[in-house]
Amino acid sequence: MHETDWGALAQLWLDRLADCSEPGPGVTRLPFTPEHRAALAVLTELMEHAGLAVRLDDAGTLIGRRDGPDGAPALLMGSHQDSVREGGAYDGIMGVVLPILALMKLNADGLKLPFPVEVLAFADEEGVRFPTALMGPRALAGTFDMAALNLRDRDGITLRKAMEDFGLNPSALPDLKRNPKQILGWIELHLEQGPVLETANQHIGIVTAICGIERHIVTLTGKATHAGTVPMEMRRDALVGAAELTLATEALARQTEGLLATVGALQVRPGVVNAVPGSVTLTLELRASEDTLRECAGTKLTIIARDIAERRALEIEIIRTYAQSATRCEPQMIARLTRAANGERNHHPLHLASGATHDTSAMASLCPVGMLFTTCRDGLSHHPDEHVTKAAMSSAIMTLTRFLTEFHSGSFSQI
Amino acid sequence: MHETDWGALAQLWLDRLADCSEPGPGVTRLPFTPEHRAALAVLTELMEHAGLAVRLDDAGTLIGRRDGPDGAPALLMGSHQDSVREGGAYDGIMGVVLPILALMKLNADGLKLPFPVEVLAFADEEGVRFPTALMGPRALAGTFDMAALNLRDRDGITLRKAMEDFGLNPSALPDLKRNPKQILGWIELHLEQGPVLETANQHIGIVTAICGIERHIVTLTGKATHAGTVPMEMRRDALVGAAELTLATEALARQTEGLLATVGALQVRPGVVNAVPGSVTLTLELRASEDTLRECAGTKLTIIARDIAERRALEIEIIRTYAQSATRCEPQMIARLTRAANGERNHHPLHLASGATHDTSAMASLCPVGMLFTTCRDGLSHHPDEHVTKAAMSSAIMTLTRFLTEFHSGSFSQI
Repeated sequence: MHETDWGALAQLWLDRLADCSEPGPGVTRLPFTPEHRAALAVLTELMEHAGLAVRLDDAGTLIGRRDGPDGAPALLMGSHQDSVREGGAYDGIMGVVLPILALMKLNADGLKLPFPVEVLAFADEEGVRFPTALMGPRALAGTFDMAALNLRDRDGITLRKAMEDFGLNPSALPDLKRNPKQILGWIELHLEQGPVLETANQHIGIVTAICGIERHIVTLTGKATHAGTVPMEMRRDALVGAAELTLATEALARQTEGLLATVGALQVRPGVVNAVPGSVTLTLELRASEDTLRECAGTKLTIIARDIAERRALEIEIIRTYAQSATRCEPQMIARLTRAANGERNHHPLHLASGATHDTSAMASLCPVGMLFTTCRDGLSHHPDEHVTKAAMSSAIMTLTRFLTEFHSGSFSQI
Repeated sequence: MHETDWGALAQLWLDRLADCSEPGPGVTRLPFTPEHRAALAVLTELMEHAGLAVRLDDAGTLIGRRDGPDGAPALLMGSHQDSVREGGAYDGIMGVVLPILALMKLNADGLKLPFPVEVLAFADEEGVRFPTALMGPRALAGTFDMAALNLRDRDGITLRKAMEDFGLNPSALPDLKRNPKQILGWIELHLEQGPVLETANQHIGIVTAICGIERHIVTLTGKATHAGTVPMEMRRDALVGAAELTLATEALARQTEGLLATVGALQVRPGVVNAVPGSVTLTLELRASEDTLRECAGTKLTIIARDIAERRALEIEIIRTYAQSATRCEPQMIARLTRAANGERNHHPLHLASGATHDTSAMASLCPVGMLFTTCRDGLSHHPDEHVTKAAMSSAIMTLTRFLTEFHSGSFSQI
């Protein structure tokens, strides 16, 4: 008898799921659509192969449950079924398929667990169709804002209507709230969407936290003048001020371990070859897994920006438009995942923060959370060329399997 | 008898000319239009007041001639009659009105000159209606490209047709070429369009040269990546590279006497808050009255830009899209204007380069040229609020008068 190639098996199921897509490059699978329906059929088939009891909750979350001892709290695992437009075949959906295969391997190995396990496929994490996201995990955590049901997609259809047409009862969302005492924790597997693991030649890595984010819009206003008639020392050039701030932002982030800082958008007015720029608006984004570190950096950059403006006789307006706290993964979850991953490649797995947001951010309101990353080719995601190797997926399945079998032993029960 | 207030008189005529405008804010007077025709009528009236013989040449240049001894070469003075859209009441037209008033003052003072003087009002310097400009002076210098007659305005009317409808014979343009031996030189009076004279509290200044200009388009290409998932040290951020180049450009110009350098336009792609900028395109403009200084600075910045790109693993493309040599004012003209201006405010007048292009740029192909600037309020031009004080205009008229009466004496005849 051949040893099962779990990575290859994962790829087969992911190929079938990638076919559940709108036409066009890559995968386009938005929530509450025929493509979502088709993916649910494939996932149901896979879950049933793994012996799971399958149901769809009123948030559109598909849940496959492996029973355990009566009344024992369950471990939840999973990710989201949806993609961005013209996205890849791994983001989200791989985090549903691989836990199911891990349970299938436990079955094949004849192993039982002293707790139930549920694998969840959330409807909408990307927030592409409606200007909201994370409804599934928020419903479980009891943090979903029912007002979001009135948000509309670009065709004018409300989220409520889309869900009803999908056969769901959105009015029942509050009933989905879980009792934290009945949940051991939540584990999400996701591709990294960055280059760290690939550069370190690692299949998998352990997530320590999901970064908090803050965003600022900075407007510098000087004086738009003729580029031929105003001497350098009499200019109030908003763009050179913005250039200083851009470099100061990079310098601070390079000096500060764990801080990411980006000037992503920058507009110049009047923005013509022969005029000294009169005004510049730019965005400043900070991410860190330590909220105080991020907030301190935000304050520092605000002071630096005001200093630049004062020195250059520019007016300045800084508006913080967005702030989201970091989500820390549970130390015991990190420790367990690390120990389980140690079996792969015989060395201590890399620990890293997630710069992107995930379903885990919302699940953290309900229970202890942990996250596992797989490497992805060229750090690429949200793109038709997104790719995770079979070898990396196999490592992830083996790690999940060891995590599950070792979960009941040792100190973890103290959570 | 009251002393004539020449500045106030200038303002009265400029007010009448400002009424020769399309409706709307400020002055809009494009070439070969009813507004141009109306301005010619006012200027003709003014020239006849000053005893000038008036004619319109086939380039649409209104010429008022004060005769001198038979066969003596003439001194030419003037500027342009046209404005930008919603421009001011001084740019160009003041340089026609003030020399006429200077000749009127000579008449009032009973002074004769040993040479003829012509005051010229060129049709089109701004190049707003047709994508060409400076036809009037180029026709005199014999440098006009007849192919430009086929260029069209935004209504599809060719320059040739517009001129014909205005009663001109564009086919005769080559016949307008003047014999340099019959020209003593060209003097243009213009508002500064910058803040230098106002800051120095000077009514008038002497132009040493019209700056040469070169323009580059620089494209820096890195890699657009997720602002949350790519560590600082693994980024190839095109915007931070562009920021370095922007600051290096400013620094070089501040260190280099006589150099102006401006990054005026800058576009970021993808240009969103949560993406590391993958590519930036910017414009780089250099101006200097010394061509070698400007070209050397252009080369330096190219080397600096390539160094930045190499250090940051960015690709770089630099295209020089435009280059125009400087026009030097004739040293004897500068000396004479300086001596004439010395009478005003009892101190040596400021010498400065013109960063903007003028009719003088084209006249320099024909004869020795000189330029006089008046101060303008807030350095403002090409704007309805453009303003020159009566006092500054009076100083300019007095300076022109002294320049004319002293022109035949001393060493100037050696030109």
